[in-house]
Amino acid sequence: MTDMDRRTITLLALLAPFTPLASGPVMGQVPGHKLPDNGEEMSSVPWMGDEQIAMLIYPGMTVMDLIGPHCMFSALMGAKIDLVASSLDPVTSDAGVTLIPTATFQSCPRDLTILFTPGGTDGTLAAASDSETLAFLADRGARAKYITSVCSGSLLLGAAGLLKGYRATSHWSCRDALAGFGAIPTDARVVRDRNRITGAGVTAGLDFGLSMVAELRGRIYAECTQLMGEYDPQPPFNAGSLRTASADVRTAMVEMAADFTRKAEALAGLQRN
Amino acid sequence: MTDMDRRTITLLALLAPFTPLASGPVMGQVPGHKLPDNGEEMSSVPWMGDEQIAMLIYPGMTVMDLIGPHCMFSALMGAKIDLVASSLDPVTSDAGVTLIPTATFQSCPRDLTILFTPGGTDGTLAAASDSETLAFLADRGARAKYITSVCSGSLLLGAAGLLKGYRATSHWSCRDALAGFGAIPTDARVVRDRNRITGAGVTAGLDFGLSMVAELRGRIYAECTQLMGEYDPQPPFNAGSLRTASADVRTAMVEMAADFTRKAEALAGLQRN
Repeated sequence: MTDMDRRTITLLALLAPFTPLASGPVMGQVPGHKLPDNGEEMSSVPWMGDEQIAMLIYPGMTVMDLIGPHCMFSALMGAKIDLVASSLDPVTSDAGVTLIPTATFQSCPRDLTILFTPGGTDGTLAAASDSETLAFLADRGARAKYITSVCSGSLLLGAAGLLKGYRATSHWSCRDALAGFGAIPTDARVVRDRNRITGAGVTAGLDFGLSMVAELRGRIYAECTQLMGEYDPQPPFNAGSLRTASADVRTAMVEMAADFTRKAEALAGLQRN
Repeated sequence: MTDMDRRTITLLALLAPFTPLASGPVMGQVPGHKLPDNGEEMSSVPWMGDEQIAMLIYPGMTVMDLIGPHCMFSALMGAKIDLVASSLDPVTSDAGVTLIPTATFQSCPRDLTILFTPGGTDGTLAAASDSETLAFLADRGARAKYITSVCSGSLLLGAAGLLKGYRATSHWSCRDALAGFGAIPTDARVVRDRNRITGAGVTAGLDFGLSMVAELRGRIYAECTQLMGEYDPQPPFNAGSLRTASADVRTAMVEMAADFTRKAEALAGLQRN
């Protein structure tokens, strides 16, 4: 019996009394996407689920883009999470963290609750040019209940043709490139347009992931997840967005990212406009 | 040339003009640890460093405890980060993410800038009872410049005898257990007492990690790191601490964690008081 199994049994017993109080989907509460005041329904929530979640991994990805959402998804009792790659060979992130996939493009379940892509820089551009990766995303994306990403992972969704006509976000350095894939670049921490749900850069995966937990299991379940993950952020500085960073910091980082920005726009075909 | 090498070269060129503006250590700006107004010195900062960072990994750890800090540490240009385990065999987290270590207890550098331990539940208790793990921590901790942890990783530091007489924090479920190791349990997101720097539960690793970047390279460098990681958190709910969660959520999660809380206190010898 794993730690997670034990937690599942304990939590099921504990949460049973709350089931009638659990609220329905609350994605509308993500900043910038408020539902009307009456948008939250009090209804029962399935504390145990059977979601099939596939998280793409590839060489050069940014591992925090993956692990932020994974931290929240792993609280979904009964859900099955696969880390999916072209083979079961180890995959090394841009900062040198090596993960072992749990499924391949072939063995990954065909009908997914969530299809997810993390971002990165050069590794993401390479993956977005890889026909096998794009074929996998297009195939699973054709049937997945939710098609999602964090950071420049949305470039992969776009390159696979999954964002045409959808509002979507990305890391600030490549958000505008999404237009080249027919998406509508949108500046928000988490952007939902129908079943496409995309997060902003890197650490936005925590907000994205917690929003998905609420979407799938309701607000009380999500709040339990937030407390267990002690997600009570207190950044020591306020430089986390282009709006709040000082001009010096902003200028330096925009310039530092400029090569990637150009490459992302070229990938999306924007250089031809 | 790796992505990180390229970023290093680009950033060095870009940031050179800022060097005279960079501030000194700013750990005092972590909430709850304010330095006096005059505590921040304007001085030059080494944009390129040579830190040796060892991050312990072990079966059953919570991978987000590791990757939050790693996300920030990996922005330290020139730093060497090792994921250290008893052998080079793959290590699987409590939620099923498998990582490959980069160093063993034997091959890990002997003189470290940062010694770091992530937390978990049963896996952490097992590691905190493993003599080889404790000997490694005690040895490297005897010389490390900073001795650090996130979440219940502080139990490992405590069990290795590294927190005696120091203020420290942990996940809320096992913070009080630290007293059994002679530490002074302290309720804050990031707690610094001399060279012991500990973070609260799971996601506190981002705040901890960013604080460490500021400590090592100054505030401007840390703000650049924050912008590149788009660390502008917008949690959709406000249930991330025992102070802010609703009574129902708090009660359920405290009860869910009770078995772990008891085991952690037993590990620390508190049951014998």
